Amino acid sequence: MFFDSHSTMEYSGSSNTQSCLDIAMEVHRVVPPPHESTVQKLKTTLKETFFPDDPLRQFKGQPAKKKWILAAQYVFPILQWGPNYSFKLFKSDVVSGLTIASLAIPQGISYAKLANLPPIVGLYSSFVPPLVYAVLGSSRDLAVGPVSIASLILGSMLRQEVSPVNDPLLFLQLAFTTTFFAGFFQASLGFLRLGFIIDFLSKATLIGFMAGAAIIVSLQQLKALLGITHFTNQMGLVPVLSSVFRNTKEWSWQTILMGFCFLVFLLVTRHVSIKKPKLFWVSACAPLVSVILSTLLVFAFKAQHHGISIIGKLQEGLNPPSWNMLQFHGSHLGLSIKTGLVTGIISLTEGIAVGRTFAALKNYKVDGNKEMMAIGLMNMAGSSTSCYVTTGAFSRSAVNHNAGAKTAVSNIVMSVTVMVTLLFLMPLFQYTPNVVLGAIIVTAVVGLIDIPAACQIWKIDKFDFVVMLCAFFGVIFISVQGGLAIAVGISIFKILLQITRPKTVMLGNIPGTDIFRDLHHYTESMKIPGFLILSIEAPINFANSTYLNERVLRWIEEFESEDQKKQSLCLRFVIFEMSAVSGIDTSGVSFFTELKKTVEKKGAELVLVNPLGEVMEKLQKSDETGEFMRPDCLFLTVGEAVATLSATVKLQPSIDVV
Amino acid sequence: MFFDSHSTMEYSGSSNTQSCLDIAMEVHRVVPPPHESTVQKLKTTLKETFFPDDPLRQFKGQPAKKKWILAAQYVFPILQWGPNYSFKLFKSDVVSGLTIASLAIPQGISYAKLANLPPIVGLYSSFVPPLVYAVLGSSRDLAVGPVSIASLILGSMLRQEVSPVNDPLLFLQLAFTTTFFAGFFQASLGFLRLGFIIDFLSKATLIGFMAGAAIIVSLQQLKALLGITHFTNQMGLVPVLSSVFRNTKEWSWQTILMGFCFLVFLLVTRHVSIKKPKLFWVSACAPLVSVILSTLLVFAFKAQHHGISIIGKLQEGLNPPSWNMLQFHGSHLGLSIKTGLVTGIISLTEGIAVGRTFAALKNYKVDGNKEMMAIGLMNMAGSSTSCYVTTGAFSRSAVNHNAGAKTAVSNIVMSVTVMVTLLFLMPLFQYTPNVVLGAIIVTAVVGLIDIPAACQIWKIDKFDFVVMLCAFFGVIFISVQGGLAIAVGISIFKILLQITRPKTVMLGNIPGTDIFRDLHHYTESMKIPGFLILSIEAPINFANSTYLNERVLRWIEEFESEDQKKQSLCLRFVIFEMSAVSGIDTSGVSFFTELKKTVEKKGAELVLVNPLGEVMEKLQKSDETGEFMRPDCLFLTVGEAVATLSATVKLQPSIDVV
Repeated sequence: MFFDSHSTMEYSGSSNTQSCLDIAMEVHRVVPPPHESTVQKLKTTLKETFFPDDPLRQFKGQPAKKKWILAAQYVFPILQWGPNYSFKLFKSDVVSGLTIASLAIPQGISYAKLANLPPIVGLYSSFVPPLVYAVLGSSRDLAVGPVSIASLILGSMLRQEVSPVNDPLLFLQLAFTTTFFAGFFQASLGFLRLGFIIDFLSKATLIGFMAGAAIIVSLQQLKALLGITHFTNQMGLVPVLSSVFRNTKEWSWQTILMGFCFLVFLLVTRHVSIKKPKLFWVSACAPLVSVILSTLLVFAFKAQHHGISIIGKLQEGLNPPSWNMLQFHGSHLGLSIKTGLVTGIISLTEGIAVGRTFAALKNYKVDGNKEMMAIGLMNMAGSSTSCYVTTGAFSRSAVNHNAGAKTAVSNIVMSVTVMVTLLFLMPLFQYTPNVVLGAIIVTAVVGLIDIPAACQIWKIDKFDFVVMLCAFFGVIFISVQGGLAIAVGISIFKILLQITRPKTVMLGNIPGTDIFRDLHHYTESMKIPGFLILSIEAPINFANSTYLNERVLRWIEEFESEDQKKQSLCLRFVIFEMSAVSGIDTSGVSFFTELKKTVEKKGAELVLVNPLGEVMEKLQKSDETGEFMRPDCLFLTVGEAVATLSATVKLQPSIDVV
Repeated sequence: MFFDSHSTMEYSGSSNTQSCLDIAMEVHRVVPPPHESTVQKLKTTLKETFFPDDPLRQFKGQPAKKKWILAAQYVFPILQWGPNYSFKLFKSDVVSGLTIASLAIPQGISYAKLANLPPIVGLYSSFVPPLVYAVLGSSRDLAVGPVSIASLILGSMLRQEVSPVNDPLLFLQLAFTTTFFAGFFQASLGFLRLGFIIDFLSKATLIGFMAGAAIIVSLQQLKALLGITHFTNQMGLVPVLSSVFRNTKEWSWQTILMGFCFLVFLLVTRHVSIKKPKLFWVSACAPLVSVILSTLLVFAFKAQHHGISIIGKLQEGLNPPSWNMLQFHGSHLGLSIKTGLVTGIISLTEGIAVGRTFAALKNYKVDGNKEMMAIGLMNMAGSSTSCYVTTGAFSRSAVNHNAGAKTAVSNIVMSVTVMVTLLFLMPLFQYTPNVVLGAIIVTAVVGLIDIPAACQIWKIDKFDFVVMLCAFFGVIFISVQGGLAIAVGISIFKILLQITRPKTVMLGNIPGTDIFRDLHHYTESMKIPGFLILSIEAPINFANSTYLNERVLRWIEEFESEDQKKQSLCLRFVIFEMSAVSGIDTSGVSFFTELKKTVEKKGAELVLVNPLGEVMEKLQKSDETGEFMRPDCLFLTVGEAVATLSATVKLQPSIDVV
C-alpha cells in the first residue's frame, strides 16, 4: 500500500502519508513571524554583523567590581594569564624564546634588506613590537617580528616613488610613516569590528599569492646569491631574470660557491625538521649557525676583498625614537597611506591566520577583532621607535610552538635577547656576508609554496584553483599588489555571479514518502502531473530577479511542451519551495507579483511553500489584496501543498480533461 | 495520540509519523548526485550564466532552410513581423508615429541643448537611429531618440575637460566619439551576453537616480527660464542655486512671464493626460503647440529684442556624415571611453526597461541581449551620421503605446516626419525662444520623480530606501555619475554583507508532525532535548566560513549553558539542515572539517541533512576517510535524522544520565 506505483496520472500519495497530512493541514498554517519593529530589526542586524561573537556576554550579570576586572583583562590579556604564571611555564618559555631569537636575529636583518631598509631596523623591529604584543595580544604562540611578504610589499611599493639608494633618509621616513598607517588601519579594523574584511582573502587566494610572493622574494635574492652589483629595480619574473642573465659578467664564483653551500645546509636542516618535528631546533638554529660560520669564514679569509659583499658596520644601541620622522603631509602622503593599507591588511591576514591556527591546535580562542587592535597598536608603537611593519610570522610561530612556548613570555625572552644583541653584539655582524642572508630568506620563503594544498584545491573546487592561479601569475608577472587585487576581484565576482545566477531546481516526489527532492539528483523521484515544483536556492534581489523571471518562464514552457507530447495533465500549479530564499528586496517582490500574473494568464496558480519570516513579511506588505497570503496559496511543506491541491483538483473532474 | 505533549524529555514523535519514518528510513538514503565531468559542469554553468533564455531552442530539429530563415529573422526582427504587416496596422502606426514626432522634434532640440550640442544634432538623432532600430529591434513600442538623462550625463562629463563654448568643434567630435563608444559597449554587452550587468542598477537605485537627475536637469533649465546669461558650468544643487541668486540682476521678467505661462500650460496638459489616458494626445501635442505659439509670439512682437533669447538660424538638410569626426587617439580618448561607458549603460538601462515594461503589458517577449545589440548598433551607426547617444525614451514610448503603435513602423513614420522637418521646416524654428525649450524639458523630467514608488519601497524594504536616498542625494550634491556609483556600490555591498553574514536559525519540531521550522518564527515549535538543529541559509564560502564558525560555536555554547540550567540532556547531536546551502568552496569544506572536530571534542556528533549535489560532492572529495558520508551522519530530512538518532540514544540509556 505504501509503495504503490506513481505511474498513474494523478498524485495520490500513500494513504498513510495522506492521512497524516490531512490532519496536519487543519492545524499547521504558515504564520507570519512575530512582529518586530524596524529599530529592533536594525539592532539585530547590526549585532549579527559587527558582534557575531557577542564579546560582552561574559559581563552579563556580574557585579560592578568583577566587571572592571573583566574589562581590564579584556583590554590587557596579560592580566588574565599573568597571575597564574608559574616557574614551570617560565622554563618552557625561556627555551622557546631563545630558540625563536636565534631565528629572529638573522631573519630580522635579512627581511630589512628585503624591504630596502638598513639591516639594523630589522633588529629594532624584533625588540619593541614583541613587548607590546606580549601585553595586548591573546595568542600564546605568535612569534612577532618582521615577515617576508610585508617586507617585500613595503619595499617594492615605496621604491616606485623614492629610491632607497639615492634618498635613504626619505625612504626610511616613508617606511615609518607607512608602518604608522598600517598599524592605524589594523587597529581601526579591529575597533570598528570590520575584521571580516580580511575574510575576503580566501585560502585559495592566499596560497597562490604566497607562492608567487615566495618566488618573487627568491628572485630578489639572486642579487646576493650570485654577487651581482647592478641589479634591476623591478620585481617581476621577466625583468629580474633578464637582468640576471644580462649581467653574467658580474657573477662572482666565490659568492656562488658560498651561497650554494649554505643554501644546501639550510634546506637540509629544514627537511630534517619537517620529517621529524622533534628536531625542530635543527632548522631553528641553522640560520644563526650559518651566520656565525660564514662571518668567521669571511673574517678568517678576508673574503670581503675577494668579491664577497658584507653587511658592513652596524650601529650599536637600542631603538632611537622615530616619531619625529613620521610625515603626515607632503607629496608622498598618498603613497604612505596606500602602502600602509596593503601591508597592513596583508600582515594582519598572516598574523590572524597564524594565531587562529595555533589556537585551534591548543583549543583556546583568539578573538579576531581584539588581535587586530593588538597588532595595530603594536605597529603604531613600532612606528615611533624605529620599527617597520611587524606581525606574527608563520615560520617562527611554528618553531615557537614546537619549542614548547606556553605564553607570550617567549616573545619577551626573544625581545630581551635581541636587546642584548643590539647593545653588545652588533660589531660581530660586520663581516656577515650578504649571500648568507639571501640563503636564509630563500629557505624561509620556500615553505610558503604549498603544493599539496594546491592539489587539494584542484581536487575540491576548480574555480578556487583558477583564483589561486590568477593570484600566483598575477604576482609573478604583474605586481605583488596587482596579483592580489585580481584574485580578490575574481573571488568577489564569483560570489556576485552566484547571486546573479542562482540555482533553480525542479523537485519531484520520492515515491512512498511526502519528501520532495531535486529530480536530477534523486533519480528515483517522480514528477507530479499538473504540478511544476521549483526550488529557488538564493535570496531574490535586484541582481537576479530578471534572470529568475526568464528561467522560470523557460521551466514553464518546457513543462508545457512536454505536456503536449505526453498528453498528460496540463499545468495547474506552479509551486515554489522557498525554504532557501533567505531574503528578498523590492525587485524580488515585483518578481513574484509579475510572475503570479503570468502564471495566472496560463490558467495555473502560483503557490508558495515555507517562505521564511523576512520574505513573508515583505510579500505581505506589498500585497494589499492579500493574494499571496491566501491559505490555499501558502503551505508549510511541498508534501502538504501537493496533497491539498490534488484534492481540490479531484473535486473538479471536468477540468482534468486536457 | 497524534498531538501528544512533547514536554517529556525525549523525542518520540507521533507513532503515526514515526512508523512512516521507520519505513522510509530503510529505503531512502542520501545519495550522491549522478556523476558529471568537470567539462560537463563547466558547460552547464556557462550555459546558465550566459544563455539562461536558451536562444537556440527554436532552431532545434528544424530543417536547414528553415534554420536560415529563423537565423535571418533572429538578426532582423523586421523579417518576422514584416510579411504579415497590413494596412490596418499601418493606419495605427501612422497615427502614433505622427504623435511621437510632434513630441520628438521639440524634445530633440531641447535635449541637444541640455547636452551642450547644437540643437540640430537633436533632430539628426531623431532621424537615423529610429530607422536602424526599426530593422534590428524587437520591441514594438519603443520610441527611439535622444533622452534627458543620457544627454545630461554626456554634456556634464565632456564639459569637465572641454568647453562647448570655446571649442565647439572639439566638443562635437568628442560627443560623436562618445556615442560610438557607448554603442560599442552596448553592442558588446549584448554580443558577449553580459546583459546581466545592467541588472546591478536596481529599481531602488534607478528611482533615486532618476529623481535626482530630474532635479539637476530642471535646475539647469533655470538658465533659460529666468533668462540668465552668465550661468555656472557646474551641475550640483548648491553651485547652481548660488549662481542663480548671485545673478538676480540678469533675470528678465519677459522671459520669466513667458516661461511661467508655457510651463503651466504644459503641466496642465500633462496632468490631463495622466488623469484620462485616452486624452494622451493633449500632452503629446502640447510641446509642439507651445513651440509654434511661442515662435509666433516672438516673431510678432520682435521679442528677441526685449530680452528673450532665441535658438537662432538652423542649418537645413539631412544628417551630414561624421565618421571623419570620430577621434580614436589624442588626449581626450580616455574621457570619451569613460563617458561612453557611463552613458551607454545608463541609456541601455532605460531602453531595456522601457522595452520590457511594454512587452509585459502586451504579452510579447523582448530578448535583452538582442535589444542591447540593436541599441548598440543603432548608436554606432548614429555616431557616423552626426547623431549623439539615443535610446528608447520612457515618456515618448508611453505616448507611442497610448497612441496605438502596433509595430516599429511608428518609428519609421516619426523618422520620416523628422526628415521632412530637417529638409523644409528648419527656418521656422529660428525664432523659437529658448525659454519654451526649458519648459518642455522640465515638464518631461517631472515625470521621472516617482514618489509613490519611493513610498512603496519605504514600506517594503528600508535598506532599498536608503540605497535610493543615496542615489538621490549623491546625484544632487556630488555628481550624476558619482551618485550612481555610490548607489551601485551600496547595493553590491549589501549583497556581499548578506553573504558574509548568512542567517543561521535554530529549528524546532512542530508538535504532531515531522516538520522542523525556525523556533523564533513558529512559536509553537519545540526544541528536542540533546539535539541542536541549525539551518544555514546561504552558500558557504571564504567570505563567511569564519563567521559561521564563530556563530555556530556560540549556538553550541548557548545550548550548553541552557542545558546546565535546566539539567536536561546534554548536547548529543548537532544537526545541520543544508537544503539552503546552494554551494560551497574550499574554505567551506574546511569549515565543516574543523567544526566536526570541535563538535566531537564536546562529545557530540555532527549530522548533515539533505546536502545538495554540489555540496555533497565536494565534501566527499575532501573527506578521504568517508567521515561525512557515513550513513548515520547523513539524512534526507531532519525528521528522519531526529527519529533515527533518538532511537540510537534510547538503546544506550546509560549515556542519558548527565
